[in-house]
Amino acid sequence: MLNRSSYNEEVCRWDVFEIQYNGQDDNDAYIKSYIKGRFTGKFEEKTVDGFYDGEGKFIIRFMPSFEGEYTFHVQSSFFDAADTGSFMVKAPKKENHGPVRVHNTYHFAYEDGTPYYSIGTTCYVWHLQTDEMIEKTYELLESAGFNKIRFCVFPKHYAYNLNEPRDYPYAGKPMDSCVLSVENFNSYNGRAEGNEWNYMQFNPSYFRHIESCILRLQALGVEADLILMHPYDRWGFSCMDREADDLYLTYVTARLSAFRNVWWSLANEYDLMQAKSLKDWEHFADLICRQDPYLHLRSIHNCVHFYDYTRPWVTHCSIQRQDLYKSAEFVQEWRRHYKKPVVLDEIAYEGNIQYGWGNITAMEMVRRFWETACRGGYAGHGETYLNEEDILWWSHGGKLIGESYKRFSFLHEILCETPGYGLKPYERTSWDEVCAVPEEIGANGSYYLYYYSFMQPAFREFNITDTKEYEVYIIDTWEMTKTKVGIRSGKFKLILPGKQFIAVMLKAVQQK
Amino acid sequence: MLNRSSYNEEVCRWDVFEIQYNGQDDNDAYIKSYIKGRFTGKFEEKTVDGFYDGEGKFIIRFMPSFEGEYTFHVQSSFFDAADTGSFMVKAPKKENHGPVRVHNTYHFAYEDGTPYYSIGTTCYVWHLQTDEMIEKTYELLESAGFNKIRFCVFPKHYAYNLNEPRDYPYAGKPMDSCVLSVENFNSYNGRAEGNEWNYMQFNPSYFRHIESCILRLQALGVEADLILMHPYDRWGFSCMDREADDLYLTYVTARLSAFRNVWWSLANEYDLMQAKSLKDWEHFADLICRQDPYLHLRSIHNCVHFYDYTRPWVTHCSIQRQDLYKSAEFVQEWRRHYKKPVVLDEIAYEGNIQYGWGNITAMEMVRRFWETACRGGYAGHGETYLNEEDILWWSHGGKLIGESYKRFSFLHEILCETPGYGLKPYERTSWDEVCAVPEEIGANGSYYLYYYSFMQPAFREFNITDTKEYEVYIIDTWEMTKTKVGIRSGKFKLILPGKQFIAVMLKAVQQK
Repeated sequence: MLNRSSYNEEVCRWDVFEIQYNGQDDNDAYIKSYIKGRFTGKFEEKTVDGFYDGEGKFIIRFMPSFEGEYTFHVQSSFFDAADTGSFMVKAPKKENHGPVRVHNTYHFAYEDGTPYYSIGTTCYVWHLQTDEMIEKTYELLESAGFNKIRFCVFPKHYAYNLNEPRDYPYAGKPMDSCVLSVENFNSYNGRAEGNEWNYMQFNPSYFRHIESCILRLQALGVEADLILMHPYDRWGFSCMDREADDLYLTYVTARLSAFRNVWWSLANEYDLMQAKSLKDWEHFADLICRQDPYLHLRSIHNCVHFYDYTRPWVTHCSIQRQDLYKSAEFVQEWRRHYKKPVVLDEIAYEGNIQYGWGNITAMEMVRRFWETACRGGYAGHGETYLNEEDILWWSHGGKLIGESYKRFSFLHEILCETPGYGLKPYERTSWDEVCAVPEEIGANGSYYLYYYSFMQPAFREFNITDTKEYEVYIIDTWEMTKTKVGIRSGKFKLILPGKQFIAVMLKAVQQK
Repeated sequence: MLNRSSYNEEVCRWDVFEIQYNGQDDNDAYIKSYIKGRFTGKFEEKTVDGFYDGEGKFIIRFMPSFEGEYTFHVQSSFFDAADTGSFMVKAPKKENHGPVRVHNTYHFAYEDGTPYYSIGTTCYVWHLQTDEMIEKTYELLESAGFNKIRFCVFPKHYAYNLNEPRDYPYAGKPMDSCVLSVENFNSYNGRAEGNEWNYMQFNPSYFRHIESCILRLQALGVEADLILMHPYDRWGFSCMDREADDLYLTYVTARLSAFRNVWWSLANEYDLMQAKSLKDWEHFADLICRQDPYLHLRSIHNCVHFYDYTRPWVTHCSIQRQDLYKSAEFVQEWRRHYKKPVVLDEIAYEGNIQYGWGNITAMEMVRRFWETACRGGYAGHGETYLNEEDILWWSHGGKLIGESYKRFSFLHEILCETPGYGLKPYERTSWDEVCAVPEEIGANGSYYLYYYSFMQPAFREFNITDTKEYEVYIIDTWEMTKTKVGIRSGKFKLILPGKQFIAVMLKAVQQK
């Protein structure tokens, strides 16, 4: 028998409403018992799974999408009759805009309609580092203005990250990692031998910690792009059987779906996970669609081969570039092909490690961001500089050494000037420039954002067919300056700095 | 009746043997009369056309490919009987290696077997500038170490080059160029109106000047990649009729074929010449093959669409890159596809003009050269910086302002270290590096040249399957340093500078 121990009588829209129940401690509760809640307000009714949080505690969470009075109706294998009650949903706080949704086919907006221009980064297991380092990560995320972070639920085993995580997701014990070396670590990839886990018994503290991280991110305005599976693994979590995989995904979705800033990334480099087939991925996607009542954003990330992003469950492309030289430059093609938001979650990382995916310059990273943005997509950052403490942002968070991250807030500010929602590539522009215009037809002719990438023109000639007058700005994307040149219209010549990474913004003068 | 007025009794192998005849001044002699010579040595017999040089002078030229005694046997419409005689061919001077030939499918060598690693540049009408500027061009060609220059036979009408040339190829007079402006010049492209030329009557001084330029280039070790036709024209030379085109090509080949450093480029941006069809180009190629007894190198250069470089008359690809972002990176594909030397005659120019083909950085230019070289091809330079004198190297020669040209001699020195003839891309190398190995199978395992392009690895790991020992050098392609690290073999780690544009050379230690 369970006793309700706590619940919120009031909650803000898009925050987590939670009810806790106390009962008997039982390690089999993860598989043997169920708890389910039906939540009913004036405009919605949702049924959600609860979960076992260990030590006899059951929890059920719900994210209300509307304001007003709600009732709950909870059923469980431990109840004779349903537990019921009610609560009030208040207006959200100012900085709470709800979950991020696809908007306008190629872009994102928060559920309240605020545009969301993704400036992402990748720190695969930042949350499994020391508290001190985790705090540093928060600080950096905030100061750099990132609004999305990709990270793994499971711990990571890879070059520059052979240490043990702070905790494990399952009851049991890991293989003895003293056998590992820089030379042999690869041969332990995707192996389960030596580990003794009970995949039917979670370690709730592991997940509670992730939840606290997600909440802190939420407070910072950062979306948590959660990687559910990945191949960099010596514990066997990448090669569990179907029963264990399903239990894991069911548990994770029950625990985490009510957090508004969660995105689901089915896998990082799905095509390197040899134990899984396309059929498996489709099965997992189906399970997540069923288990997540809030329809959080969903995608899957590739190594060599793109997943078929046309699949209906995929809300946006999560792309690792396939070409060493070109990445951002393909955004237009991918938009045309997939008709979904194009997020380049991996375009190589700024750094100097030995691998080609982790040693581009800061300038090239910033160039890829702008090139992506002006083609109507969203790029992602990561950093992999060698350093004495062996703290590589891409894996650990904690520390940024480079130069690119300082320049994304500026890009974000520029993106926020877009009339309507999001940019699209202007198709009738010259072959030797990128030009972005507003995605929305209603904003036609009101705004042009030209980008000259690695080229260094000392001037350019413009011929705007629209009869409007435009405020003209020259933007140095590297130095982060935006200089007003004056008002121009029609055909005109613009003197430019004759250096790389320059953009030009034309903004229609507002009619009085 | 013609009288022989001069000829050389002795000539060096691959130099020009020339006989001159005097007769009646006749402006119709370009079309009405012929002069032909048969030249016979122990190892060759060649029949070549002579040409009318104006003022009653006929000239016949021959380039002997062997040493020893030769006889000549000249017939003309002005002779009753043939004019005959003999001359001696001596050994060539040290710096004379003969014409450049295709060697080893993908590379070039002089006829005496000396490898030729092409380091080209483009100055379309440098030879039509003032004597003073022409002298400056020679100085720069020499100091920069260029060994090929692309330029046009006809004058050029284009942005930054609207001035009149120093001379014209035909008798007659040009349109009045005072009607031209920066705004309207494009509308005069490929038009003949306003010009009054007699296409049946050449202006020999124009061609004599070109010959003097070709000879000076020869003395500097520079190949003259002659562009026979091009679309940047307000005089009508780009839209002559078939009769005039044929007469022109016959005349040019008769005058210039005997110069060993001549290459034939049928056209620059052939696909922009709307008055010509593919059939025309094939016809011109056929004519040149018939008229040039020495089989100089032949190609044709594109704007948007590649010519079909598999055509048998094409000796090598002369490519303008089609992609704004990638150029050098396609060399492997083009080698595979065309099975001929890949010369990237236009990969955009270092500079800062408004056009995307003329505003890349020096670093990007040098990067494209190395990237091309390490993939077994040859890149070409050009420069388009705005300046007060309006002297843009790409059009006028005379002046180089940039930074890339200072770095090609260094690349050339490195290429000269290649065992055998030329480099090919090593197919079994890592995805994130370019690695060149000797083209010749006999040199297998003796040499590796790695290039890391825009990546900045702080170290790389090597695993050479060959059991040889190698001298290891780190090359900074921008700073032009080559630093010996030591002897290595098998599996080893190499600390690198962690900056862009680094190469690593492994040279098998010579067995004693």
